[in-house]
Amino acid sequence: MPILSVQAARDPSAIGAQATVRGWVRTRRDSKGGFSFVEVNDGSCLANLQVIAGEDLANYADEVKHLTAGCSVSVTGVVKESGGKGQATELAAAELTVHGWAEGDEYPLQKKRHTLEKLREWAHLRPRTNTMGAVMRVRNRISRSIHDFFQEDGFLWVHTPIITASDCEGAGQMFRVSTLDPENPPRDKEGRVDFGRDFFHRPSYLTVSGQLEGEIYATALGKVYTFGPTFRAENSNTSRHLAEFWMVEPEVAFNDLTDNMDLAERFLKRIVADVLRDCGEDMAFFQERIDPEVMPRLEKITAGAFERLPYTEAVTLLEQSGEKFEFPVSWGADLQAEHERWLTEKHFGSPVILYDYPSGIKPFYMHVNDDGKTVRAMDVLAPGVGEIIGGSQREARLDVLKARMAEQGLSEADYWWYLDLRRFGTVPHAGFGLGLERMVQFTTGMANIRDVIPFPRTPGSAEF
Amino acid sequence: MPILSVQAARDPSAIGAQATVRGWVRTRRDSKGGFSFVEVNDGSCLANLQVIAGEDLANYADEVKHLTAGCSVSVTGVVKESGGKGQATELAAAELTVHGWAEGDEYPLQKKRHTLEKLREWAHLRPRTNTMGAVMRVRNRISRSIHDFFQEDGFLWVHTPIITASDCEGAGQMFRVSTLDPENPPRDKEGRVDFGRDFFHRPSYLTVSGQLEGEIYATALGKVYTFGPTFRAENSNTSRHLAEFWMVEPEVAFNDLTDNMDLAERFLKRIVADVLRDCGEDMAFFQERIDPEVMPRLEKITAGAFERLPYTEAVTLLEQSGEKFEFPVSWGADLQAEHERWLTEKHFGSPVILYDYPSGIKPFYMHVNDDGKTVRAMDVLAPGVGEIIGGSQREARLDVLKARMAEQGLSEADYWWYLDLRRFGTVPHAGFGLGLERMVQFTTGMANIRDVIPFPRTPGSAEF
Repeated sequence: MPILSVQAARDPSAIGAQATVRGWVRTRRDSKGGFSFVEVNDGSCLANLQVIAGEDLANYADEVKHLTAGCSVSVTGVVKESGGKGQATELAAAELTVHGWAEGDEYPLQKKRHTLEKLREWAHLRPRTNTMGAVMRVRNRISRSIHDFFQEDGFLWVHTPIITASDCEGAGQMFRVSTLDPENPPRDKEGRVDFGRDFFHRPSYLTVSGQLEGEIYATALGKVYTFGPTFRAENSNTSRHLAEFWMVEPEVAFNDLTDNMDLAERFLKRIVADVLRDCGEDMAFFQERIDPEVMPRLEKITAGAFERLPYTEAVTLLEQSGEKFEFPVSWGADLQAEHERWLTEKHFGSPVILYDYPSGIKPFYMHVNDDGKTVRAMDVLAPGVGEIIGGSQREARLDVLKARMAEQGLSEADYWWYLDLRRFGTVPHAGFGLGLERMVQFTTGMANIRDVIPFPRTPGSAEF
Repeated sequence: MPILSVQAARDPSAIGAQATVRGWVRTRRDSKGGFSFVEVNDGSCLANLQVIAGEDLANYADEVKHLTAGCSVSVTGVVKESGGKGQATELAAAELTVHGWAEGDEYPLQKKRHTLEKLREWAHLRPRTNTMGAVMRVRNRISRSIHDFFQEDGFLWVHTPIITASDCEGAGQMFRVSTLDPENPPRDKEGRVDFGRDFFHRPSYLTVSGQLEGEIYATALGKVYTFGPTFRAENSNTSRHLAEFWMVEPEVAFNDLTDNMDLAERFLKRIVADVLRDCGEDMAFFQERIDPEVMPRLEKITAGAFERLPYTEAVTLLEQSGEKFEFPVSWGADLQAEHERWLTEKHFGSPVILYDYPSGIKPFYMHVNDDGKTVRAMDVLAPGVGEIIGGSQREARLDVLKARMAEQGLSEADYWWYLDLRRFGTVPHAGFGLGLERMVQFTTGMANIRDVIPFPRTPGSAEF
């Protein structure tokens, strides 16, 4: 007997097929005519398949009439045209097997609706809900598009290390990784913990960015990207921060800042186009139930070219806007969310790429412009969410890089291999970073970042 | 001016094109006729592009004639048919720009050949070598095939957590993750380190497997896979072990052990077929320079069906083989490498899937067979390397699972959410794990696992 997914069985092309469908019961409704409607979902799509199970089934009275939300079943029968609304097909059951029951009063998802906060406590059951199922399908589609986009363009996926002894300057606080006995670590003569006897014979940490290692591979193999977990040990409990998140970071030899902007814009447009094409049912759900602004926001990504302007011009626009901002605008300071929103939402009504930021607010590795005051940094700002991508052309000149490191108090010895990339066959190169979870939030309209990752890691929370 | 990769410029279809090619010099050879042959590589393929640079270039005497290995250049000119052997095309330079020099006596890759051991010390430069470039292109192709295979079949990529408070029993020693001050951690009244004040308010670790969390998603959304970094804090310095490696773990609701074997076999055949189709030049290099057995070994994967037999029958075959093994064979003990090799290489001459292993040598979560002595485990053994995939049908019955946990001294409280999956709508399900680096070793013939990952993490080594 062929096995069909719920998605396949809901398609009109399945009408007439003998098939088996397997999944979990969402609801059961008994008709007076001696049969029941059993809604079955298997995660292949948002909608359920309606199963018609009648009293001709041997286990109708004993089992079918006791089915509750969460029970797992296999149903064999014929796919028929459905008279019901919202569905083209239904499955007339000739046989229904119950694999597992879900005790009604114990099963947490039995009762009607739960808040997203409550569902986080049941992270092992929440993928069985409509919302989390839809989020995970869109998250998967975005992740797949990330790979497709780069692979089709000849990029190599490079697995940069998770455990590192380097500290990508300024990116954030780090988690320590160790196998020393925390109760009683070995100590040196001065009484300090002897990390020479730790697993890696030195202090080691979880990565905050794969960029520096990505540059190693870009300056050897041309076009590369990293896509992996990244960590920040920051004690921030906000709807936009996780201690563990996934980040994609392309890095391209011979690219300058304009190439980098072009790549970022093509990249975002491609992801959004793929989601709109392939996740229509899930996106309609987000638009209706989660965020009525989500579809208009995505359409702004695909609609036209992103606005591009230097940071300095943006500051002038903001100063002349006549708008009352909570935080003052002044050249040399980072823009605040309210400023970014004014630019994308009020002034331009489109995504905006700001570039050439003051060197004082950016890390050491960005290419210094001829003005000596700005660096070739760029931020892509999206209406509704603000910064979604940050990147730069990297400083390829050994002498300028060393001077910037000295300015920021960084030791050349710690970055010997990074400097070697400039010492031997240096090339202009550029790259950027996109946080996957921020992109999923942007795409689905989910307000809290904890609800767009399977198992969120935040201060005080590493369950499951 | 259009930009061509070296790969594109080497293709006969490029003949006649005006183009720019950018990359790194591999060698320079001067002709007496007033011109030089400059071999340029950009990572897009193993082979170099031959550039003909003549004294008509303004910088011929001052720059071109000083080019050495490692210098970065852009060359603009016309692609012409080449009379040289091993190449269809060459680039006649009209302009050659040097971006970065590589001081001959300082550049480590200047001198002729280095051992793979030596190259590990220069992990920031070794992707510029032929061998590492080829490894990374094949590694990328395998990684891409892993995603393609599952995505085309409707699987969802699920990002299971890297930091975890759970311990996937028996999988191996774990790294601790912490933000406590190691010199002077907070202590409780009994004087023990107070992990309640650590970042996650409890002891936390790096994951050794995403399987248990993968089961959460499979029993909600049907077909899922994880693909991410995995960690073992084992002090083993072998050519087959890393402290940090990438693992792919599919998990499928309603699959039994036979389905699981079918999936694993299709999966391996697909990866190998993709590599053979797309990486011909790199594979010829591995066959010629690294391992003359690599191609015959891969052809055994694609050639026919894998042999499948129960562990018990394999033990009987080994006992009756008349072979003198170093380690004795006896029912109930794990097979040793020599036994696996005899089965795959001598007896069957093909990949072998062994299944139904003694329960005593397998973890608690595997489905117990009706004989009460074996579990639905499977190992895929490949000629030349031994076990490459391990998996099982999972125990879906709550009572049997609890009994197995009790046997192995595991606490139900620690696994409350894993037990809930059996309490609420349990289904048969199965999955397996494949280590990416083992697969890259198998595919390329590289002897040491440190040479198939960009930045190997091993005891005492976390540089870069």
